[in-house]
Amino acid sequence: MNAQKSTFPLNAWYAAAYDVEVGRTLLARTICKQKVVMFRRTDGQVAVLEDACWHRLLPLSMGTLNSDEVTCGYHGLVYNAQGRCTHMPSQETLNPSACVRAFPAVEKHRFVWIWPGDPAKADPALVPDMHWNDDADWAGDGKLITVKCDYRLVVDNLMDLTHETFVHGSSIGQRAVAEAPFVATHGDRTATVTRWMENIDAPPFWAGQIEHARGYKGKVDRWQIIKFEAPCTVNIDVGVAEAGSGAPPKDGQSGDRSKGVNGFVLNTVTPETDGSCHYFWAFARNYCLGEQRLTHQLREGVAGIFREDEHVLEAQQIAIEEHPDHQFYNLNIDAGSLWARRLIDRLIALEKPPAPVIAIRRAA
Amino acid sequence: MNAQKSTFPLNAWYAAAYDVEVGRTLLARTICKQKVVMFRRTDGQVAVLEDACWHRLLPLSMGTLNSDEVTCGYHGLVYNAQGRCTHMPSQETLNPSACVRAFPAVEKHRFVWIWPGDPAKADPALVPDMHWNDDADWAGDGKLITVKCDYRLVVDNLMDLTHETFVHGSSIGQRAVAEAPFVATHGDRTATVTRWMENIDAPPFWAGQIEHARGYKGKVDRWQIIKFEAPCTVNIDVGVAEAGSGAPPKDGQSGDRSKGVNGFVLNTVTPETDGSCHYFWAFARNYCLGEQRLTHQLREGVAGIFREDEHVLEAQQIAIEEHPDHQFYNLNIDAGSLWARRLIDRLIALEKPPAPVIAIRRAA
Amino acid sequence: MNAQKSTFPLNAWYAAAYDVEVGRTLLARTICKQKVVMFRRTDGQVAVLEDACWHRLLPLSMGTLNSDEVTCGYHGLVYNAQGRCTHMPSQETLNPSACVRAFPAVEKHRFVWIWPGDPAKADPALVPDMHWNDDADWAGDGKLITVKCDYRLVVDNLMDLTHETFVHGSSIGQRAVAEAPFVATHGDRTATVTRWMENIDAPPFWAGQIEHARGYKGKVDRWQIIKFEAPCTVNIDVGVAEAGSGAPPKDGQSGDRSKGVNGFVLNTVTPETDGSCHYFWAFARNYCLGEQRLTHQLREGVAGIFREDEHVLEAQQIAIEEHPDHQFYNLNIDAGSLWARRLIDRLIALEKPPAPVIAIRRAA
Repeated sequence: MNAQKSTFPLNAWYAAAYDVEVGRTLLARTICKQKVVMFRRTDGQVAVLEDACWHRLLPLSMGTLNSDEVTCGYHGLVYNAQGRCTHMPSQETLNPSACVRAFPAVEKHRFVWIWPGDPAKADPALVPDMHWNDDADWAGDGKLITVKCDYRLVVDNLMDLTHETFVHGSSIGQRAVAEAPFVATHGDRTATVTRWMENIDAPPFWAGQIEHARGYKGKVDRWQIIKFEAPCTVNIDVGVAEAGSGAPPKDGQSGDRSKGVNGFVLNTVTPETDGSCHYFWAFARNYCLGEQRLTHQLREGVAGIFREDEHVLEAQQIAIEEHPDHQFYNLNIDAGSLWARRLIDRLIALEKPPAPVIAIRRAA
Repeated sequence: MNAQKSTFPLNAWYAAAYDVEVGRTLLARTICKQKVVMFRRTDGQVAVLEDACWHRLLPLSMGTLNSDEVTCGYHGLVYNAQGRCTHMPSQETLNPSACVRAFPAVEKHRFVWIWPGDPAKADPALVPDMHWNDDADWAGDGKLITVKCDYRLVVDNLMDLTHETFVHGSSIGQRAVAEAPFVATHGDRTATVTRWMENIDAPPFWAGQIEHARGYKGKVDRWQIIKFEAPCTVNIDVGVAEAGSGAPPKDGQSGDRSKGVNGFVLNTVTPETDGSCHYFWAFARNYCLGEQRLTHQLREGVAGIFREDEHVLEAQQIAIEEHPDHQFYNLNIDAGSLWARRLIDRLIALEKPPAPVIAIRRAA
Repeated sequence: MNAQKSTFPLNAWYAAAYDVEVGRTLLARTICKQKVVMFRRTDGQVAVLEDACWHRLLPLSMGTLNSDEVTCGYHGLVYNAQGRCTHMPSQETLNPSACVRAFPAVEKHRFVWIWPGDPAKADPALVPDMHWNDDADWAGDGKLITVKCDYRLVVDNLMDLTHETFVHGSSIGQRAVAEAPFVATHGDRTATVTRWMENIDAPPFWAGQIEHARGYKGKVDRWQIIKFEAPCTVNIDVGVAEAGSGAPPKDGQSGDRSKGVNGFVLNTVTPETDGSCHYFWAFARNYCLGEQRLTHQLREGVAGIFREDEHVLEAQQIAIEEHPDHQFYNLNIDAGSLWARRLIDRLIALEKPPAPVIAIRRAA
């Protein structure tokens, strides 16, 4: 009935772990429906293998890591970091087919990224820009949460911050967000939603930040500039500045944010299965860089806000599964997420084999 | 293979909640496989809406109630008590299709009843008679339990009280019930099973009641008059009177129950899914009306008895699911439940579109 | 798509319980996908019935045992030990079809065995030989564990003890096991794998045993003689003797094991469902027969070793279910399990109705 369509492209870099998670042990995780085992080689590079022994499928993550090789925990087959079997018990000759798949992996912007598709296309230059996550001009920290929903629901959520008003009313939400106009634009692989709310009262979260960092109390100009990069990265430039101090861009020029506080909410959301995802996020700021207490407080504060989203997203996933044929209508506020969805769909379509051409010849 | 047939009619009133459960909050419940949200309007009337926002399907029960309107907890769409969307974020024009289904609801005999079928047919006069539940001549109380079985298994259970002997041996069961003859009759929408057990020892439960209320110890005439009203209501007239005091009907006339104690076990069983149901029950009595302690004791005593049934019903449901093609044989004791099943099947059949007439014409 | 093939033959004796488990109560268990209830009759014989009442399918194990008869816990139907209904409530005439299936059962070698297939073929002489389990020359004890895997994975595990090196490295595993050559032979219904490791250091477990029993420390000759009997019994003759004392067989004659310690690991693995099994095992020894402390210690020690297997087997089952079309390759070490699998498959094939002969006639 419902022919299962792919929900994500394979030819893309997906965050698989925070850098610190991968060390000299065997870390198991499911990325894009593929079970993998990750470990750090003795030279510090990350290796990523299919997590199933070639012989009897036992997860290699249940085995042991010795130097740069993994020994299966059942019958002792040994695999090197490229996935090739280098030892079998009780026999000298190794079956030439004996190997497990190895995945291209790079470490960048504090994440380990893996490429589940065609290795020949795995160009490290395609890793999404999340440099705020390890840039000396910014300070911050983040977390990984595994959410029981299609990763695209998280993208939808981030592309329309109207929901802040209703989901996060006690921290960052305010009527102004739901009422302010916004502009949605898009490129080949990116979509951007920009919303400026000028001369408003700051919501509790931002009122606290600008007072702490700049000693300022009063009206602010607030911005949210959401930038999506297909298939699953959303970096959000957020902040407030003294009202009227020139923060909004003018005549195509960036504004002056020097009287403000600026943060980036960095999000990259990796499909685990069709109905669950690994949601990596971090919050980086450009003020009070040395305050470890503030870093800790912001990380836990944002974590609390994201738990509110998690609750909504998981309920939405259940409702969608219960209404498999539901036809969704879109509102104005969905402009950003619609573009994100289109860009994702385009990447998926590119990976499909072309439909066969059927020649019909008529007998003359 | 096993084409899923409907297990319940839609054009019927189903108890959805006890009256006291519905107030100025959002109550979520699944009735006849339909998720609904219930609340009491400011005028005291009960409103029942489909529990899924038109926009992105989030359960409305996760939102907030303001005056007579519900605000979705994700993007803030607002719905009135008729299910029509009255506000959307960031846009002036409302999509005319923007509404959720509203269900006819009435409050009667201490229950909130909803009609999941054609609203044009929702005649409040069709609510089953359960007046003992709020009649000044009767006192009592009840509970709601959600049982993991097809609601018809509960109906079967109530239509044949033989099971009291084997399931409830320590309270209301006794050999006499399994051995006494009974009479089963039926009408268009009702089926009745009548069993009189004359000049017997009362089982522990009834021995206690008649001694407490009438100071009587000794042989009794016991009755069980079970009345089913399709699709899922079973009211049982039960009691004992001094043996020989004239309680049994005679020559078509009702007997004299003045030397007895009388109760009504009121049951209405609403399908939740095909394999689970909301079982609303109450026990009302016509003696010692002012004794709150007795009301409490009877409610908890009956609750204990019903837990014994719950255990059996859930095991039976599992066994039936494991034997999908099982052909059931019927015993004499099944006469009442057979009639109940036929009346339910008739209501279900009435809702099916007539089979298409296929005209076959032969070329002349 | 994936036509479900049977994973076990029905015409075989399967261990259903330890003898001590079956008494004057109703014991429910699923054997070869069949729910059964077991009890001991007043004459001490074991009766095994289908665990579902003929009338409404309630498990009979929820009823009561009276003398040699079971009363259903719902409506009181009574069944004798042959499964025939002998009483129905409120009626004199019993439906002649009213019975539940009774299974042939025998008690032997401390297990209750049942035959789920054709009763006419249930010859008690076919019960596998596990006499060490109740032989005065041997002492020991065992356990039942229910493992969430296909029973054949346990057979595979036992037929190749190479895994001891990797799974049980702290007790019985050692490099020598993975490296020593072995011989695999087979008969019509049995397969045998024999491995001798001469003049080696004993692994911790066996070093402790031979020192305790014989006061010997030093090099040993170690043996593992694994004997499979289709479909699911594996008895393993294991032990060590003083190196060079003549334990290995020579010129077709058995060796002299008098300077050694000998044990039998007795295993019989009954399918519960396609993905779970009841694994009955015991460890019997021919030394220090009277030491109850040693019996206790060995039973718990072996139980700890088997928990390591359980962890591997359940992970393997999950992996196999996730790779339904996986094509397995075999190594030298798989010789024994390959024969076991072939003998099982042969028994299953014997039970299939012969494929229809399709006569194709050509028009002359």
